[in-house]
Amino acid sequence: MVRVLAFDVFGTVVDWRASLIAELQEFGIRQGVQRDWAKFADGWRAGYVPAMDLVRRGELPWTRLDDLHRRILDGLLRDAAIEAADADVDHLNRAWHRLAPWPDSVAGLQRLKERYTITTLSNGNVSLLTDMAKRAGLPWDCVLSAEIFGHYKPDREAYLGCAQILDVAPDELMLVAAHPSDLRAARDAGLRTAYVDRPMEYGPGRDRAMIEPDEFDVTATDLLDLADKL
Amino acid sequence: MVRVLAFDVFGTVVDWRASLIAELQEFGIRQGVQRDWAKFADGWRAGYVPAMDLVRRGELPWTRLDDLHRRILDGLLRDAAIEAADADVDHLNRAWHRLAPWPDSVAGLQRLKERYTITTLSNGNVSLLTDMAKRAGLPWDCVLSAEIFGHYKPDREAYLGCAQILDVAPDELMLVAAHPSDLRAARDAGLRTAYVDRPMEYGPGRDRAMIEPDEFDVTATDLLDLADKL
Repeated sequence: MVRVLAFDVFGTVVDWRASLIAELQEFGIRQGVQRDWAKFADGWRAGYVPAMDLVRRGELPWTRLDDLHRRILDGLLRDAAIEAADADVDHLNRAWHRLAPWPDSVAGLQRLKERYTITTLSNGNVSLLTDMAKRAGLPWDCVLSAEIFGHYKPDREAYLGCAQILDVAPDELMLVAAHPSDLRAARDAGLRTAYVDRPMEYGPGRDRAMIEPDEFDVTATDLLDLADKL
Repeated sequence: MVRVLAFDVFGTVVDWRASLIAELQEFGIRQGVQRDWAKFADGWRAGYVPAMDLVRRGELPWTRLDDLHRRILDGLLRDAAIEAADADVDHLNRAWHRLAPWPDSVAGLQRLKERYTITTLSNGNVSLLTDMAKRAGLPWDCVLSAEIFGHYKPDREAYLGCAQILDVAPDELMLVAAHPSDLRAARDAGLRTAYVDRPMEYGPGRDRAMIEPDEFDVTATDLLDLADKL
């Protein structure tokens, strides 16, 4: 019996791409520069897994996601020949603290919270997730992060650390995510899994994630549909 | 400028004593035993600091508060010649997950949350604090605990860990507590401090905590008064 729902956040609960593009457009206006901000946002996100992998392989000591985002951002700004004051770059870097939820997220979480303990289980750092939740009204029961476990997902320690700190067995914990790779690692660690389809995560016209029928315990079109199904 | 309020929980936000006495009375009825439950509750709480000190001095490895509570409880039951099934003792031990807030706590936190990020900074473990918040409606922005920092208060690492994980300077973080010793350790670590008077914490007729005038940045009679003063 599932007692806790742990949510992946970027892409599953919030629309990072549209939020970043809007923030980058504002940044461009303030700096007086124009670039392909959608491409810039995609490049920022594309740097995410390789940067975490440096930490996961031990080539970097533990580095919080804010600081990984900043390393990637500094490189993208350099490549785009944009020079900006440190305070402006820092504000832009914190765009990840201000991501907007998908339209169903707040109402879906409110419903799911009536029956389950709901927590983040994100690679975002605690301050990022806390700021985001406060601004967007995400009603988490608690805020858990890779930062607390010292391991980025898909390291097994992140999934099992979440179960351990919430004092539930792995199979009493269900990961909710829009990313099959995250869910497969959670399943391998003994968790239950719920796939949420977010076809617009990477923008229009992208290939859909491939999942096998019945690969996960639940498949839902959004968080309201997940509440119906659970 | 203070950006985050971190709350001590037992005694400051919730009335552990009245809650434990009520739970112990129910336990007594179910077990068919009668004891002085107020004294039993006080004994349980009295074991708290010595148990944590074993961990703080390194004589015990990290042990979550639920397990320290259980060690103390097992001793008290033995001394009181009460034998109960393990499931009943476990349920009683989790009375700490079900503590009720003081009458002003929820409304006070709601007001304080409008202007500040509000977090727990408690020696209670994460699952205890999460269960308590869900049941009592405590609207934390995040749930932080000694368990996350691997150090019980008043170890300096707990206060500084809270500032670090929320990405604020120590003097942007204010500890709110009913216990001068907790506040003094926080102040020594560079935090701001707010004393909340909880004269009934240990029951009627107890000596009041002694504090110097202006020893702390703010002194309040309850959390609504604190919201007025901040």
